[in-house]
Amino acid sequence: MNWEDYLSANQDRFVEELRDLVRIPSVSAKPEHMPDVEAAGEWVVARLKAAGAENVAMYPTAGHPVVYGDWLHAGADKPTVLLYGHFDVQPAEPFELWETPPFEAALRNDRIYGRGASDDKGGMMTPIIAAEALLKTTGKLPVNVKFFFEGQEEIGSPTLAPFISANSKMLKADMIISADGGQWSETEPCLLLGLKGLVGCEVTVTGAKSDLHSGMHGGGVANALHGLSQIIAELKGRDGRINVPGFYDDVIDLTIDDREAIARAPFDEAEYIADLDVPDVFGEEGYTTRENLWARPTLEINGLWGGYQGGGIKTVLPREAKAKITCRLVANQTPDKIYGLLKAHIETLTPKGLRVSVERLPGNADPFLVPNGHNATSAVNEVLKEVYGRDPYLVRTGGSIPVMTLLLKELGVHGAVMAFGLEDENIHAPNEFYRLSSYRKGQIAYCKLLERLGA
Amino acid sequence: MNWEDYLSANQDRFVEELRDLVRIPSVSAKPEHMPDVEAAGEWVVARLKAAGAENVAMYPTAGHPVVYGDWLHAGADKPTVLLYGHFDVQPAEPFELWETPPFEAALRNDRIYGRGASDDKGGMMTPIIAAEALLKTTGKLPVNVKFFFEGQEEIGSPTLAPFISANSKMLKADMIISADGGQWSETEPCLLLGLKGLVGCEVTVTGAKSDLHSGMHGGGVANALHGLSQIIAELKGRDGRINVPGFYDDVIDLTIDDREAIARAPFDEAEYIADLDVPDVFGEEGYTTRENLWARPTLEINGLWGGYQGGGIKTVLPREAKAKITCRLVANQTPDKIYGLLKAHIETLTPKGLRVSVERLPGNADPFLVPNGHNATSAVNEVLKEVYGRDPYLVRTGGSIPVMTLLLKELGVHGAVMAFGLEDENIHAPNEFYRLSSYRKGQIAYCKLLERLGA
Repeated sequence: MNWEDYLSANQDRFVEELRDLVRIPSVSAKPEHMPDVEAAGEWVVARLKAAGAENVAMYPTAGHPVVYGDWLHAGADKPTVLLYGHFDVQPAEPFELWETPPFEAALRNDRIYGRGASDDKGGMMTPIIAAEALLKTTGKLPVNVKFFFEGQEEIGSPTLAPFISANSKMLKADMIISADGGQWSETEPCLLLGLKGLVGCEVTVTGAKSDLHSGMHGGGVANALHGLSQIIAELKGRDGRINVPGFYDDVIDLTIDDREAIARAPFDEAEYIADLDVPDVFGEEGYTTRENLWARPTLEINGLWGGYQGGGIKTVLPREAKAKITCRLVANQTPDKIYGLLKAHIETLTPKGLRVSVERLPGNADPFLVPNGHNATSAVNEVLKEVYGRDPYLVRTGGSIPVMTLLLKELGVHGAVMAFGLEDENIHAPNEFYRLSSYRKGQIAYCKLLERLGA
Repeated sequence: MNWEDYLSANQDRFVEELRDLVRIPSVSAKPEHMPDVEAAGEWVVARLKAAGAENVAMYPTAGHPVVYGDWLHAGADKPTVLLYGHFDVQPAEPFELWETPPFEAALRNDRIYGRGASDDKGGMMTPIIAAEALLKTTGKLPVNVKFFFEGQEEIGSPTLAPFISANSKMLKADMIISADGGQWSETEPCLLLGLKGLVGCEVTVTGAKSDLHSGMHGGGVANALHGLSQIIAELKGRDGRINVPGFYDDVIDLTIDDREAIARAPFDEAEYIADLDVPDVFGEEGYTTRENLWARPTLEINGLWGGYQGGGIKTVLPREAKAKITCRLVANQTPDKIYGLLKAHIETLTPKGLRVSVERLPGNADPFLVPNGHNATSAVNEVLKEVYGRDPYLVRTGGSIPVMTLLLKELGVHGAVMAFGLEDENIHAPNEFYRLSSYRKGQIAYCKLLERLGA
């Protein structure tokens, strides 16, 4: 029996297994579900063992546990591939909006409905099943494989970095493939090449020792809210260009190829405008909206406040104004350098009669850009092309996937994503589901990937 | 006996009368004190009658009552003078900070301590006593006098305008003198020539239909807070100049005489800076701080808010931002015209990808500027010069005194202020007091003023 027949022969079992896993309410955000996160980890340990993985164990971290297992008998001339996924899930509230209970894992219309079915239990299962199919039908794997699954992705992996640092030898790999992510559509594949980084600061502008009467002191002293508005207005122009000196210095410019690749991914700007109900798009001049969304750094005001926010009129001259600002970064910007430039520039913009202070906000991410010709990414590209019968769109995202930058930082390896979630699957929302067709496609793709990497 | 001797002979009684009046807790802001406001009005009715006034009565309004009385036998060739004051007071909280209870009217160190002693019961009594002294010693008054006292000044006189409108014939006068106000110091008089007006608006900037993820949409759509900051920054430059086209068109420029008069009033800029704990003053370039405070229009942001105001980081792209803006106006700006200019200009500043709406805030005031050579003001000037032995400082204020602009609008007469409160008397604060010396000085000044107006 070849692996393809094995997948067919056992598919009903795989479906039931995924349903079993979805039934464990491993909500990492909720303290009362800590035992469930651990139970899900134990379930994964057992499943890895059943698949034929070795050295399988659950490891504690300072937070939720991780699961590791490996199969390292392909030989020293074969690459070692780390396969990543997570077994924790988002909270399921509001429960009343679910058509069937989130932890019942109802099966209907060839879909499994339940919290975590798509994100990421269905995804995480696919490399395990692929490894099982290859091991059971050929007795070996084409490459050395390490499985690394975590239980805290949905809360931002707060205690993962020290674990990876401390266990870098165990986790060392030539390539990393993440089974957490998605495809463009049921018939169109995509390949993730870039993520944005993140850095943020809080700006405080202070005027007088207290709020003042605008009649008594208006015209005599500066207004903290006006001063903060001036600073913010000067940070980014009406052309969408960020005016912080040095801000763009480390940005890797988009090549003609990059821009062509981005343009190939379907994007209907009129639909985007209509969906968001905005009068127009707005981004840095000289770039398409998609280029701005995917591949240009941003500076956004996330919050701004000061003075009177109630009804009617209050003629106060507020003593203090505050703003939260975050920048999404692209390669090769770094959070430290951009924060330094931003802080220095904001300080030079201090208006007359006011004091300005800048403090860094917690939460950073490095930008992530897959190098040209990257081995694992090229392999995923070929597999997706084979499975879907067409070239994947080459995509980036303005968001951050902390674990990708974390693995890059700690293990020195750019991860490639090969996952089969789709945008309509209600992840992080009621009625999350995963298509059985995606589940099957993932198993096949992982078998093909492991074969290709071993060839 | 002349009026001066009469004042001396009866001063103890006048002090006890003021203490009686202070003991009535006529707090207009508190519904439970409505009967006390009325009781204070009744007390004033009785006191006016005792002084010799005629046609004395309390009149209802849609809110707190007013008291009117007159003496109109000076002859048709003599002017009719309306004397204004108020018998309501601010709330006395926090009670625990008062050294003696606010409605005990304790007498110590030649001061009466109590809520309203200075603002304005002490002030309001002085023209009544002056009229009594003249009537009892000469049998008549040198001019026709109308007394008009209100019970809602401390809540902004919300129902006074319709009363004045409906009773403009009764209140008609050639001159208006307000006994509510103050002097520069115990030894230095001042004459109030100008007040600023007020108009305000709320600006709402709207982006997408909901808050968005700054990673998913940053670079694609405009940020409402950034857009609002741009608008606000453009409304007033770093030179303190308001950039709304037409804003200054109706401003009466300061003459050399005006500027010299303003410069004569003592002002220690270093002390102002130190008192407010600001790094510097800030106002419109080309004008001194005092000129800006007193005589130039302003545009202030009273409140601004949008997005996330909590701790830490939240990478939201906020859908909405709001600001409250008020302008203090100077003659001959009008609230209606300035609002129109401001709204139109803000709309032209609408940033790409955003919607902007402007709504007028409740609460307006016209600016108030005494015309050169104004009769009542000239008379007050001469009286103050005589009483203090020196020229009064010619002052303006950035605040508004709604009743002054109201009386101007309804009766067509610029009021002059002649009052004797001093800045250290804790009005609107615990331990308000009024100096017996000011009380006496006020009585003398009003006698002299009535004589001078009748000469």
